[in-house]
Order: sequence, then structure tokens, then C-alpha cells
Amino acid sequence: MNAPLDLAHWPILKPRPMPAAMLQALKALFGERCSTARAVREQHGRDESPFDVPPPEAVVFCESTEEVAQVVRLAAQHRVPVIPYGAGSSLEGHLLAVQGGVSIDLSRMNQVLRLNADDQTVTVQAGVTRLQLNREIKDTGLFFPIDPGADATLGGMSATRASGTNAVRYGTMRENVLGLTVVTADGEVVKTGTRARKSSAGYDLTRLFVGSEGTLGVMTEITLKLYPVPESITAAVCSFPSVDAAVQTTIHIIQLGVPIARVELLDAHSVRAVNAHDKLALKESPMLLMEFHGSPSSTAEQAQTVQEIANGLGGEAFEWASTPEERTRLWTARHHAYFAALQMKPGCRSVTTDTCVPISRLAECINETVAEADASGLPYFIVGHVGDGNFHVGYLIDPAIPQERETAERLNAQLVARALRLEGTCTGEHGIGLHKQGFLQDEAGDGALALMRALKRALDPQDILNPGKIFQL
Amino acid sequence: MNAPLDLAHWPILKPRPMPAAMLQALKALFGERCSTARAVREQHGRDESPFDVPPPEAVVFCESTEEVAQVVRLAAQHRVPVIPYGAGSSLEGHLLAVQGGVSIDLSRMNQVLRLNADDQTVTVQAGVTRLQLNREIKDTGLFFPIDPGADATLGGMSATRASGTNAVRYGTMRENVLGLTVVTADGEVVKTGTRARKSSAGYDLTRLFVGSEGTLGVMTEITLKLYPVPESITAAVCSFPSVDAAVQTTIHIIQLGVPIARVELLDAHSVRAVNAHDKLALKESPMLLMEFHGSPSSTAEQAQTVQEIANGLGGEAFEWASTPEERTRLWTARHHAYFAALQMKPGCRSVTTDTCVPISRLAECINETVAEADASGLPYFIVGHVGDGNFHVGYLIDPAIPQERETAERLNAQLVARALRLEGTCTGEHGIGLHKQGFLQDEAGDGALALMRALKRALDPQDILNPGKIFQL
Repeated sequence: MNAPLDLAHWPILKPRPMPAAMLQALKALFGERCSTARAVREQHGRDESPFDVPPPEAVVFCESTEEVAQVVRLAAQHRVPVIPYGAGSSLEGHLLAVQGGVSIDLSRMNQVLRLNADDQTVTVQAGVTRLQLNREIKDTGLFFPIDPGADATLGGMSATRASGTNAVRYGTMRENVLGLTVVTADGEVVKTGTRARKSSAGYDLTRLFVGSEGTLGVMTEITLKLYPVPESITAAVCSFPSVDAAVQTTIHIIQLGVPIARVELLDAHSVRAVNAHDKLALKESPMLLMEFHGSPSSTAEQAQTVQEIANGLGGEAFEWASTPEERTRLWTARHHAYFAALQMKPGCRSVTTDTCVPISRLAECINETVAEADASGLPYFIVGHVGDGNFHVGYLIDPAIPQERETAERLNAQLVARALRLEGTCTGEHGIGLHKQGFLQDEAGDGALALMRALKRALDPQDILNPGKIFQL
Repeated sequence: MNAPLDLAHWPILKPRPMPAAMLQALKALFGERCSTARAVREQHGRDESPFDVPPPEAVVFCESTEEVAQVVRLAAQHRVPVIPYGAGSSLEGHLLAVQGGVSIDLSRMNQVLRLNADDQTVTVQAGVTRLQLNREIKDTGLFFPIDPGADATLGGMSATRASGTNAVRYGTMRENVLGLTVVTADGEVVKTGTRARKSSAGYDLTRLFVGSEGTLGVMTEITLKLYPVPESITAAVCSFPSVDAAVQTTIHIIQLGVPIARVELLDAHSVRAVNAHDKLALKESPMLLMEFHGSPSSTAEQAQTVQEIANGLGGEAFEWASTPEERTRLWTARHHAYFAALQMKPGCRSVTTDTCVPISRLAECINETVAEADASGLPYFIVGHVGDGNFHVGYLIDPAIPQERETAERLNAQLVARALRLEGTCTGEHGIGLHKQGFLQDEAGDGALALMRALKRALDPQDILNPGKIFQL
């Protein structure tokens, strides 16, 4: 079993200084939209990962695909790294300038370019965030379901193959990106996919770029599937005597084929955190937060089946979120869980795990993890997209105390080893970034990793696209 | 607009003779399972495409992944092409030995290796066919929904990113392959994916191989998602006064978000063909053949909604397939449509189209196509997975009359041009193979095609894996 990257040594820090000519060219092209101000660079040189590395040498705020292509062409000419930047909400160090270079800020590319409500598709610029998209389409009767905790950009979500609470019903970015506009390593603009819902036309470039973490190209436009807002949406919370009982309930729900839209686990620590952060009064015991989508009769039927399963495992009667406002309040609290938990230990950072296992192995995976976490003495919280077999443990560490980080990393490594033994993955939705490169090696093996490296070399022979992420070349 | 490959000139025929040493080595390893008999080679040298080219120089019947790896290692050593062969049901010339070489017959790798009913996953060898798989798991309460017309192998279905009648509800092979065992161009055995339902662990190798038509690796084992057999399954047929009315009904069904499991169009020609072939008495007018999956109340609700839509567009009252036997009989007839249609013109071959467009463009696409086909005088039939925007026209040609082929290819090219203009794809599920390479160029553009070629060169630098397919290097 490989450890995560050795944080004490950072073999991955290989700065490639930017030639003055490139900075001059960027300044000439972008004027004030090319910034070397320390504060701007530092803001773009960190994310939600627990690492500190030197910031990029410059930040360019691009406003079009062609501008992104201009930056990449200069980068190719000078062999300087470029790092796409969206909302800065990566948990795995994707944005860190470990080899120096230029951060390409895409947040001003925030136009919804083209809505085709009749086809349930939309094309957006990469800097549009998931909440913005849903606000802009809310009068169409359609919605976009993928919802990582943060209000991430669709570009960032595509780059990490993100998912969230709705994935059990609607899939992940893998299933919901139809096509892309990508700037390749030589600064060419390429379109992948069409608006057709399926295709067998050649290699699946769309899905090769989705999840490539900015290492194969810079995505600038994304065509997405949308879904009709269900006629009936009902949400319920149900408390359980133990994490195990909540997980067993989930396993039964999935194995019975109930088309539940969301089934989220919060352990007692998480419930306590969101109660404090969002002024809620949820019972502070392990909880499932659920949502049912369909016709009124179908959602009633689903809820009844799930209530029966929960009853049999000691679950309490459902508490219903009866109004849309109450429902939004609950889900907003769920999305705040990560930030709420951070506030339980002032000044802390979170070492956040992201394993995903086959549903039948979920109880074994979570129960052993809880036992280890309890024994460690570190404060932690668990939230989980348990319907997918995916859950997160956030170990709250004081970044000034190396021993806490070591303990958290040891627990993370033990959890990943367990997930792989149970035929799962080290990351369900956060990506590899810097942090999970050792785990990827364990999971994929030398052969698959050699293929990935070959693909990287083929599409980015100078290694300028977010270098040092996913694997070391 | 590019034409399909120029069949008169076959610039793609570039035989690379197999050295005697390689044949000797194959004979030594495989004995009688390496055949050079003319009949065996000819059987492996053609498929359902309308092309005739010389057969492969040898056929090897492999029984394990390691045996496939042995063949590929020899092929790599001697720079000889290898062509994976499953059921021989390709429509696009995928199996044709345009550069000579060895056909690797995987049909004896037909074991269901591992069923995990609790996780709704199964791992099969690549030679297992879709009907075999469903027979072997029928006592588990689970099923595998993807169903191209032929009883194809799961390997072939993965290689072409196949779909079929259930894709509108269950997705295609793209969504339903969780992981693969692949023999790479240097004869290494690599596993991709895990049994977890989602993952962000590095590049999506699984989906890169799915749809790669044997040109990037030989898939030998496939892990698939399964689904619970719905509590209630009901099927109905509904006749319409015109193809347009049937298509408009479909568009409304999809736009309303009815979770219909299957919605298939058969034009009057197709209905006539299946009536004759399967001894049915369906009304010989345009027809939708539908299936509803869910709880009894949910399927009743779906059917009622669809009936109301159909009524408004001149559809007749549903005729229900009330027993499972009747249902099976209807769907078996649907799956026979292609072969049934071939029998309407003795000795004919079919030039089969496979466009897929956004649902709102489907009526325009089909109506213009029908008008052109009627005007051409060629016999034809239309079947369509219309819920996906995907339909097939089969133009029935006498292979001995070049003019008929030319007419069919002209109609095909016109249809593809129309589909691309409507933001669709030249192939929804059959793949590119030999036949659609010009269309792929039109659809993907030079930039995307350059990326595909770069990927091919990276993973198969000697161009030994099914060379000459998808594009010319």
C-alpha cells in the first residue's frame, strides 16, 4: 500500500520559471486582466486541500475560449504550466502551482450560452456555477442535478468528474456531459460530442476529458443534460440508533431498486455541526436525509417502502420537509456540512476521504472506519452519498501539529486500503489531484497507470497542462 | 460533406502478410484452435456490412485472457494485425481484415465469471452474448437491458458502444460498463475500473476502450451493471396514421419526462416484414412498440399519459401484450426486424443508417428522410429507438447492381448531412468501422480526429489492433 504523497519532502515541487517574454506577452494581450499581485496569486494558489505551496507566477482572467487558447499557445511556446481555475473549491490540491506557471481564471466565462429546453440540454461556459445554472433555468421546468458540496463551476465539476447528493438517481458528470469545447495543449480549439443523447462516433473524447483534472486540455464550454423538475418532490429525515442501522437501511433501499433521488448519511458529529451552523434542531444521532422524485403516487409509494425498511432497522418515523422552503433549508444545511464541520474546531483543516465501494460492502467499510476514527481521538465527521456506496470522513486537524496530520493520513490510507480490498475506489468524486497519487497507483496498478501516462504524453507532450497532478510523469 | 469510403477503390486495403514464423508459433501454441481453413477464415472475414474483402490469414479460438495476450504478443513481435471477433454481427465492417492478419475469435470465452446480485453487477468473459447473460441470471431477479438487434457478444457490444431498445431508460454500454480487462498492444493485461458505481480515479480508461472498436486493446472481461426486473412490465402497440404522428407522440413523451422503458418506431414496411417473418398480424401502418417498467401503479400512470398523448395525434387505442409470452413474442419480432426486412428482397444486402439527433429535431429528420427514400424507388424500412432520437433506415440493395448501392449511399450521405446539421451524430450505436469514416471526419472535425489519431498512436504505436477502422492513420 502506498502512502499519500510524502508531504515532508514534496518531490513534486519543480518550479519552471516563466520567461519575462511570456509575462510581457500576457500583459500586452490582457492588460489588467493579467495579474501578478501577491494577493491575487495567493488566492489562486490554494484550495480546500490541506497543502501550502508557492502560488502561480501570474493569474489571467480569460473571457473567451479564444483568450484561453492565446494563453495556452504562449505557454506552449515557453513550456510554462497553465492551471485552469474555477471556484477554487478543490479538496485535493488540483489548483496548486507545484511547477509554477499561470493560473487561468475562468470565473468570468460565466454565460449560459444556449438553452434547448425541448431537448433538455444546455451549453454553458466553464465558469458558470451549478447554483447559477439552476437559477438561470428555473423558469423552464428543468434542472441540473449534479451538486457537489461547494457551489463549484461546471468546468471544475467536469474536470474532477464530480457528483453529489443526486447521483444515485441522476448519475455523475460522467453521465451528464454531452459535449465539450476544449483548448488542447497546442492551443487548438476542439469540440467533442454533439447534442445527441448517445453516439458511437469514434473514441469517447468527452469522457476522456471529463475527470482529467485539467491535465489533457482546458475545458471552456460544456453541453449538459437537464431533467424535468419532478411533479412531486418530497424530502424526509429519519434518525437511527447507529450508523450501521442507517447504512443497512440504505443497502436495502438500493437492493430493492427503489428509485430514490437522494439518500444521504450524516453521522451524529455532522448533524451537530449543521445544527450549529444552520440553526437547525435535528436530532443529533445518525441520520438519513432523503428525497423522492416522481408523480405524487410514485413518491408516496417510494416513501412508504423506505419507511418500512427503516422501521425494521430501528429508524424513527420520518420527519417530513413539507414545504419547498423547508426542503431547501435542509439541503442547504447538508451542502454546508463540510464548512459547518470545519467550524467545530477553530483554525482546523480537514483531511477528507472519498472512498466508494459496492453497496453490499458499505456497512463493513463504514463500521470499521468509525471504529478506527473513534479510537484515534481525532475529531471527525462523516457525510455520505451512501446510495452510491460513497462516503466522506473529514478528519479535523490542526495544521500546526504534524502529528495530527500524520494520524489523519494514516487513517485515510487505512480506509483506502479497506475500500480497495472491498473492490471499491479511493475517490468517488473528488479526484486524485496531488493527494491521492499513491492511492491511484494501488488502485489502478502499473499497467493502467502506464496507459494514463501514455495518454498524457500523447495529448500534452510538453507537460504544460496542470503538470504534476494525477500522477508524476 | 465527405462521402462514405470509395468502395470502388478501397484505398484501405493494405495487406501485411503474416510471416511463416508467426503462423508456426500460433500452431505450436494453439494446435487445432488455430485454423487456416478457407471456410473458417471466410466466416471470420465478413459481417453484416455490405462489403467483400479478403479474409484474415488465420483464426485463433482463444479460451482465456492469457491466450489472447499470447496472440497479441506474437502479433506485436511480427507487426501483424489482430482483429477481435465475437458474434460477427457488426454492420459497419469492423471485422474485415483490410490489412490482413489474425482474427481472434472470443466466442469460446463465454463464461459468466462472477455474479454479485447484492451489488447488481456481473463480470463476464467477452464472448458471452446478451441473451446468454440474461438466461444465466434469470433466477436472480436481475437483468441486463442493453439489446442490439442481434444476439451480439458483450465484447462486441462494448467495442461499438452499443445500445438498443432499452437505452431511453437504462442508457447504453457507455453507462453500463463498470470495468474491463483489456489486452493492450504490447500484450499486457490491464484492468480498468472497479465494482464501485462511480469513481474519479484518474483518466476514464473504461470509457476510452468502450467504443474503440478493437483499435486500442482487446477486451476480454467486462464488468456490467445489472438492474432489478421491474415489479410490473407492460407492453403495448399503438398504430398511427403517419410516421410523423408516431414521432410527434414520442417527442411529447420524452419532453414530459415519462420514464418509459422502450419506445420503438416501426414504419409500415417494417411491420409488414415482421408480420411475414414472425407470423404476426400487426396492423401494417406506422407503429410505436412501447414498454413500461415500474410498480403496477406507476406503469398504469405512464401508460395512461402516453395513451392521452397518442390519442391527440391520431393514435389508435393501445393493444396490450397482456402475458409475458406475448410480450416476448413482440420484442423478439422487433429484434428480428433487420433480418425480416432482408427477406423482403431475396439476395439483398442492407445499407443501414444510424443517425441520432436531439429529440426536438427528430420529426424534421425522419420526415425529410422518408420523402427522399420514397422518391428514390429503392425498397427500404425504418426502425427507430425514437426515444433517444436514433433511427435506422435500411436501404435494400442488390449487391450485383452498383447503381442501387450508389443510390443507397447517396441517401445515407444525405441523411447524415441532415443529422449533423440538426446537431446530431452519424452513428448512435453501430460505430464507424469502415463505412462511416468520411462521416466521422464531417462530424468530429480535423481537431478532434487529430486527438483520436494521437491516442491511437500512443496506445498502439505499431498499428496492429484492428488497423484501418474508425479512421486511416
